[in-house]
Amino acid sequence: MPVKGEMIIGRRAVRGSAGTVRAFNPATCAAMEPAFGLATTADVDAACTLAEQAFDTYRNLQPERRARFLETIADHIMATGPLLIERAHDESGLPVARLEGERARTCNQLRLFAGVVRAGHFMAATLDPALPQRIPPRPDLRMRRIPLGPVAVFGASNFPLAFSVAGGDTASALAAGCPVVVKAHGAHLGTAELVGKAVLEAAIACDMPEGVFSMLIGEGRQAGQALVAHPAIKAVGFTGSRQGGMALVQTANARKEPIPVYAEMSSINPFYVLPGALARDAAGIGRGFVDSLTMGVGQFCTNPGLVIGLAGAGLDAFRDAAGEALRTKAAGTMLTAGIHKAYAGAVGKRNGIAGVRLVAQGGETGQGCAARAALYETDAATFLTSPDLEEEIFGPASLVVACRDEADLLAVTRHLEGQLTATVHATGDDRELAATLLPVLERKAGRVLFNGYPTGVEVCHAMVHGGPFPATSDARTTSVGATAIERFLRPVCYQDVPIDLLPEALRDDNPLGLVRMVDGQLRAPQ
Amino acid sequence: MPVKGEMIIGRRAVRGSAGTVRAFNPATCAAMEPAFGLATTADVDAACTLAEQAFDTYRNLQPERRARFLETIADHIMATGPLLIERAHDESGLPVARLEGERARTCNQLRLFAGVVRAGHFMAATLDPALPQRIPPRPDLRMRRIPLGPVAVFGASNFPLAFSVAGGDTASALAAGCPVVVKAHGAHLGTAELVGKAVLEAAIACDMPEGVFSMLIGEGRQAGQALVAHPAIKAVGFTGSRQGGMALVQTANARKEPIPVYAEMSSINPFYVLPGALARDAAGIGRGFVDSLTMGVGQFCTNPGLVIGLAGAGLDAFRDAAGEALRTKAAGTMLTAGIHKAYAGAVGKRNGIAGVRLVAQGGETGQGCAARAALYETDAATFLTSPDLEEEIFGPASLVVACRDEADLLAVTRHLEGQLTATVHATGDDRELAATLLPVLERKAGRVLFNGYPTGVEVCHAMVHGGPFPATSDARTTSVGATAIERFLRPVCYQDVPIDLLPEALRDDNPLGLVRMVDGQLRAPQ
Repeated sequence: MPVKGEMIIGRRAVRGSAGTVRAFNPATCAAMEPAFGLATTADVDAACTLAEQAFDTYRNLQPERRARFLETIADHIMATGPLLIERAHDESGLPVARLEGERARTCNQLRLFAGVVRAGHFMAATLDPALPQRIPPRPDLRMRRIPLGPVAVFGASNFPLAFSVAGGDTASALAAGCPVVVKAHGAHLGTAELVGKAVLEAAIACDMPEGVFSMLIGEGRQAGQALVAHPAIKAVGFTGSRQGGMALVQTANARKEPIPVYAEMSSINPFYVLPGALARDAAGIGRGFVDSLTMGVGQFCTNPGLVIGLAGAGLDAFRDAAGEALRTKAAGTMLTAGIHKAYAGAVGKRNGIAGVRLVAQGGETGQGCAARAALYETDAATFLTSPDLEEEIFGPASLVVACRDEADLLAVTRHLEGQLTATVHATGDDRELAATLLPVLERKAGRVLFNGYPTGVEVCHAMVHGGPFPATSDARTTSVGATAIERFLRPVCYQDVPIDLLPEALRDDNPLGLVRMVDGQLRAPQ
Repeated sequence: MPVKGEMIIGRRAVRGSAGTVRAFNPATCAAMEPAFGLATTADVDAACTLAEQAFDTYRNLQPERRARFLETIADHIMATGPLLIERAHDESGLPVARLEGERARTCNQLRLFAGVVRAGHFMAATLDPALPQRIPPRPDLRMRRIPLGPVAVFGASNFPLAFSVAGGDTASALAAGCPVVVKAHGAHLGTAELVGKAVLEAAIACDMPEGVFSMLIGEGRQAGQALVAHPAIKAVGFTGSRQGGMALVQTANARKEPIPVYAEMSSINPFYVLPGALARDAAGIGRGFVDSLTMGVGQFCTNPGLVIGLAGAGLDAFRDAAGEALRTKAAGTMLTAGIHKAYAGAVGKRNGIAGVRLVAQGGETGQGCAARAALYETDAATFLTSPDLEEEIFGPASLVVACRDEADLLAVTRHLEGQLTATVHATGDDRELAATLLPVLERKAGRVLFNGYPTGVEVCHAMVHGGPFPATSDARTTSVGATAIERFLRPVCYQDVPIDLLPEALRDDNPLGLVRMVDGQLRAPQ
């Protein structure tokens, strides 16, 4: 049997001895084979200690070796073949085609970061040459960024590949030069083991120091909290609920040495439909919106959970078309029993809020953890006075807020908490309102998009998958895209350090061929 | 009388009505005229609300206008003439020549940031053009950094000009596009008023929006805590004690929307004297060290409070020369009565620690808040088991730790908390030990310097005045140098945003002439 119920500590695949836990098939509601051994406190300590021991060796490897390691991880993940996809499908209920796409995306992410490592811009190499004749003389000052240290990664339930064991957090931390200790997500334990072993094989094939990667199995919050509290850990990457993220933030802040936590948590992703766009194609936008809302059973961080428009015939047409499209959507299996229960509870609660009306529901739920999509509507006054309506519902539920006028629409916008995305559907006729809205949305969201749908996050250099609290715990960063690497770096200045002790990135002869800032000017390598 | 006891709220100079407080002359121990009115809660709210109202206008000004504003502030500070220097001298006890130098440095900082604004690298403009033929198609994605919002600045007692009202935090926040609300430091209220009015005049001369700058007078922690808790404030810059910094961090973390706090707090700045360097010039290094230790009565963040070397004749010679030099140093007036009292208390406590010996003391203290320099010595075993010896003593006191061997020296180094600086005196003969030490020091400090002295922080592009906790509350940043601006920025991605709504930094025709990253490649403007 290929999945053995093991975790990875350094170069060893081990069965934890602190009890067992099983994966769960949300379509059949059945526990899956095999049982996984849970990590003891000693296991957490062993993984973190190995990571600390690996750190200096790993961070000082030539960039090319780190880049090849990332690429080799991608190769080994691809080599898992259908086995990985089948296990992930059984554990998550996500369709096979989606998981195949997600695996490709995961490997593309690893390869993107290999390119980022080779290009070396992330080091931000900066040289201010000595000015011995100046009064007072200026010393020789050089700066580069170095990695923070071992990083704890908590995967997400909704992306068992792209935001999990070898997902964006792991790829960007390894690219930065940080060893990684993953806490495997309980919603896809077997998937985690298969991917973890692919990373382990890549580490061995590339002769990486032991401890560059470990993966622990834990139940509840205990192992995760012990991981974040461990002195060797210097930063945390997390994707999940607001409650889970904030628990890690609190643990990190209470350490003797507080550490940064990059938690991507909660977002309802406002979706604006302006009058010109509605006049042109209210029905088309309504259908596109429902496709985005129900994709992946609504289990995307960027799921559009809030629609904002001006009350009137256009918004009515949008709502009617969206309602009609929603009714045709079959119920889909959610990722876990817990998520399914939370969704049912949140929808039930929304049904009871005064001033909120149910517009339409999706197909009846079948067996297992299937969820029925739901669309509600309300007015701005109700929205502004019902804090519950601002809470993320993780799943295919959304709410249309009808505003009386533009002032009302801006008041609703200013009232919103931080978001991962804000979407605007507008035509040239909406230019004035869009121009007024854009600077407000910039301050609320990490990504502002026009005439599209927020689900689907491109992995590239300009992507920002982040945003003001509570979308994330650190608005200054992104967890997707090339600049995610910056989360795991800090600058160090070298003053009059002898040439033979200087890091290569800062040597006069620029052996790494970096673009560097010299005396305030960016300089291409000679 | 030029100093009127006023604070600044938007465009108004106002006298607070929540009681009064006076400046204090630490040389004469006399309270100074005039009384300053303290800010009410309504004053704090008014300043923050104006800052919020100014934000969108200010952040969207052409970079050239922001740059000129910074330069105009420098011009107005220079125009304060001897009046500012005399008041700062009376309030701080710092020598006139030092304050003149510090004023020049403050203006240079403002001008450096004007250059940073004009160059525009801080915006990190990034374009990933659409790939309509790809499957699935890639949308048009562009990214820039925008300012976080209004920033609260808490000045430092030890740099009444360069780290205060118009110091590095204010300059970098204004450069980023953030309005600033300063809480004036009680140790130099009159200096703060004069500089605050220079900023106000510059804001008026440059036609800046009202609220781009305010300065509040508060006593104790109340006004400061209210400032950090205000919803309009989106980041905090602070320089001061660990206790004071952590109090602000806690307030910031407890907000409904937590915000980043950049607190530069506590550092003992280890100073390594390796055998080769001691063999060459133990006495010279000892004298240079004492000059650095006693400069500004030891009241520098980068003051060398810890000397680490291998026990033996070389270290003895260093210690004897340092002791001899120290005895010739006259007592100096400290910045405030509180600092003086804390210094006396800390030195008294150190005298009582078993295994610690007093090597030498500086000249007797005279009247007022004068402090006597002190040099102690101990061994590594005592240091490793006495946590009190790792606490910063703010003032001219240092401790020589004699290590038995290199392993002992590395153990002491690994044991240290985070630091702003680490200094190594070494020759070619020390290469092996220096090479072993450097990667350990990189992880402990924001700046590593060789064969120099840590006091004296150059304002340039490669400077890092930061470091791991408790040196700062955020090791990923610096509070001095061009990259200090990055503390006040966050990235925003624009997806398929219509050309006429795109910010200038991201337009196809690149009207700001920025170096931009296009499809992963840095591109100079055409």
